[in-house]
Amino acid sequence: MSSYIEPKVLKGFRDFLPDAEIVRRSLTENIENTFRSFGFVPIDTPAIEYTEILLGKGGGETEKQIYRFKDNGERDIALRFDLTVPFARFTAMHKTELTFPFKRYHIGKVWRGENTQRGRYREFTQCDFDIIGSDSLSADFEIILLIYTTMKNLGVDVTIHVNHRGLFNRFLSHIGQSEKSVEILRAVDKLGKIGEDETLKSITELTGEENAKKILEFISAKGGFSQTLERLTELSGGSCPEAQRLTSLRQCMAEAIGCDKSDPFVLNPSITRGLDYYTGVVFETFLNELPDIGSICSGGRYDNLAGLYSKSKESISGVGTSIGLDRMIAALEALNKLPAAQSCLVAIACVNIEDSGKYQALAQKLRQAEIPCEVFTEDCDEKQIVKQFILAEKKGMRYVLIPGENPSSSPVTLRDLSARQNIELSIDEAINKLKNILR
Amino acid sequence: MSSYIEPKVLKGFRDFLPDAEIVRRSLTENIENTFRSFGFVPIDTPAIEYTEILLGKGGGETEKQIYRFKDNGERDIALRFDLTVPFARFTAMHKTELTFPFKRYHIGKVWRGENTQRGRYREFTQCDFDIIGSDSLSADFEIILLIYTTMKNLGVDVTIHVNHRGLFNRFLSHIGQSEKSVEILRAVDKLGKIGEDETLKSITELTGEENAKKILEFISAKGGFSQTLERLTELSGGSCPEAQRLTSLRQCMAEAIGCDKSDPFVLNPSITRGLDYYTGVVFETFLNELPDIGSICSGGRYDNLAGLYSKSKESISGVGTSIGLDRMIAALEALNKLPAAQSCLVAIACVNIEDSGKYQALAQKLRQAEIPCEVFTEDCDEKQIVKQFILAEKKGMRYVLIPGENPSSSPVTLRDLSARQNIELSIDEAINKLKNILR
Repeated sequence: MSSYIEPKVLKGFRDFLPDAEIVRRSLTENIENTFRSFGFVPIDTPAIEYTEILLGKGGGETEKQIYRFKDNGERDIALRFDLTVPFARFTAMHKTELTFPFKRYHIGKVWRGENTQRGRYREFTQCDFDIIGSDSLSADFEIILLIYTTMKNLGVDVTIHVNHRGLFNRFLSHIGQSEKSVEILRAVDKLGKIGEDETLKSITELTGEENAKKILEFISAKGGFSQTLERLTELSGGSCPEAQRLTSLRQCMAEAIGCDKSDPFVLNPSITRGLDYYTGVVFETFLNELPDIGSICSGGRYDNLAGLYSKSKESISGVGTSIGLDRMIAALEALNKLPAAQSCLVAIACVNIEDSGKYQALAQKLRQAEIPCEVFTEDCDEKQIVKQFILAEKKGMRYVLIPGENPSSSPVTLRDLSARQNIELSIDEAINKLKNILR
Repeated sequence: MSSYIEPKVLKGFRDFLPDAEIVRRSLTENIENTFRSFGFVPIDTPAIEYTEILLGKGGGETEKQIYRFKDNGERDIALRFDLTVPFARFTAMHKTELTFPFKRYHIGKVWRGENTQRGRYREFTQCDFDIIGSDSLSADFEIILLIYTTMKNLGVDVTIHVNHRGLFNRFLSHIGQSEKSVEILRAVDKLGKIGEDETLKSITELTGEENAKKILEFISAKGGFSQTLERLTELSGGSCPEAQRLTSLRQCMAEAIGCDKSDPFVLNPSITRGLDYYTGVVFETFLNELPDIGSICSGGRYDNLAGLYSKSKESISGVGTSIGLDRMIAALEALNKLPAAQSCLVAIACVNIEDSGKYQALAQKLRQAEIPCEVFTEDCDEKQIVKQFILAEKKGMRYVLIPGENPSSSPVTLRDLSARQNIELSIDEAINKLKNILR
């Protein structure tokens, strides 16, 4: 046939087969349950928006990676490349319909035409969560606690590195370098990637050698949280609101989690987050058992989320972060901590196709008892029943229920696939047995 | 500021605010739970595919509506407009990795540049479910039973209209009109929309008056399932495998559900489904309390799902259908049967911002007892506590928990917002009370 089309997917895009998709859904559900337990509520926005809105004042890298095109009405539109920009637009549009402080999460796919050679995907899922309409310390802390709890509930321990962007600015001002703060922040943000020597070199170009050394001293301060904070405060010219906030944050951490034995919170003055819009507390999150993959959840406090889309002068500040689901799954897989893909527990064998209705009636009894149950659709004679055992095993099931002569009332045979044993039971006994296994 | 951008979404696209999104998620979960209880497993595919693959042999309406563009590598790509075509491509690509019969569901967004004046959306969610790799009567019946059960679990009663495309073809052959079967099927499919007179006219143009009358007699056959089936069998030249399948299907329905009082299954020979690829049993689903909105779940049996993407001659047949989530939600809303958007049950009031860590420690106790719990982030003095009551009411909560002097151990005050009553309790008593309310 000449109309054959080769089946393939685009580079950087993926199919999810059942086992992978079951695991993805169970992890998403786990994350979502944690968000909901903190009173966060979900929103959703369109996959496609006006390009003007998505690019905003952006450009640069984003503009190169965005999937942008014209629709049939010649509108310039694009696929969302993150969930932050749509949230800013959403907030400006629906301000009067929301109750502030507004705690929302958003789990959705985003698209970027990234270089796939670096093992990146062009379609991936983000889980964003933010509190907006609050300047409160309590909001800063809640986001950090929510990261900690979400990871705990996924079965991993993390260390969260915290800093305050304003404290660093105050320090720069103290040494007379506040004008170049944006450039310096960007250079500092690369410390982890390029090392101290290279960082010192690039800062020296910006500020001269003496200042560069002071800056490096500041960002290299190490030790316990309180000890580091004391040093940073001193270097910045003494007590200030930013240092005070970090002190209070530390107190919250101690009270809510206890930071004695293995402290999950580190004050790390080299964390600045390259993005210009952070203004307060910033943080990065590292897996204790797999720190080398880098931060799996970064974010911070920003001053004016929806400013670009608002005519009013009133700004909405907030604090928030994002978990990359695909990266998180890869990490859990590397740590052997992915949940098992849960299959259906039991199949009802098909001995006589004419009894299909009765098999389904029997299956409905199991389903009503909350036992997931597949009915096999191809019949076989009694000698071939082993074929159905093999099929059930392939599908990851643990039991096959072989209906009796009268499928609605006769005793059934329950085949334990791993033990390779059959037992004869009444229908009610079989249901009870299977229920107990699921418990 | 000159850089103001007006916040808006594209026509036919929607934001989902928390209340709407909570309801969508709870309905999706409900539907998904039913699918899983039948042993169906989820898959996912990319939002974007090669245009060649998505358009296949299509064209016409689809080609006009598809969102199609070039990526940065000049590839001709498009957004999926349904979940059926990607499933065909998926099946051809992963055939050796799947276990057949394969029962899968797929819940995802699709995009069509439809005319929004007809109240249609350009981004909407479909819930597809199919059994492939089985010719069995049992598979036909299971899909029909799964429609019935899914709707039952959503709280609505449906009537499922069933027919067999092959029986109609046999009838056409019997009256010597099989060559024009595709055109006739298309004309018949419009009966519900344009009425008997117009249908007769358009069929007369195809077959002449005498045949047209016979065809109209066939598709208008009414009455009980068995009675109608008898008449159709007679008109088609007597007993045949297609009539036999409908007889068996009827038997399954009676055995699994019982069709005595209010029969949810109707044999309706005018249902043919316009699409060419159906070959066997076809069906449409109507809400008993809202039949006028048309079929909310249509589908049928097809012969060769992945043929276009397969080099091998071996074809994969199957049976399946799709629920349009947005239409279903609109229908449930019209019937006043949408589940309530479940809010977080309780907020912890913030009396003193310095105690934020202790409030979160208290909240964690509630969360560990599976009580979703928001911590308020803005403090107020005791006289202003009413502000927090108002905020909690706005957010749809039922209680505010006011921590005591020592938030980790002192008795708390539990405010019942609807009763406007405060009671003083120990922390454990409060947790038990709230747990009982959730139960």
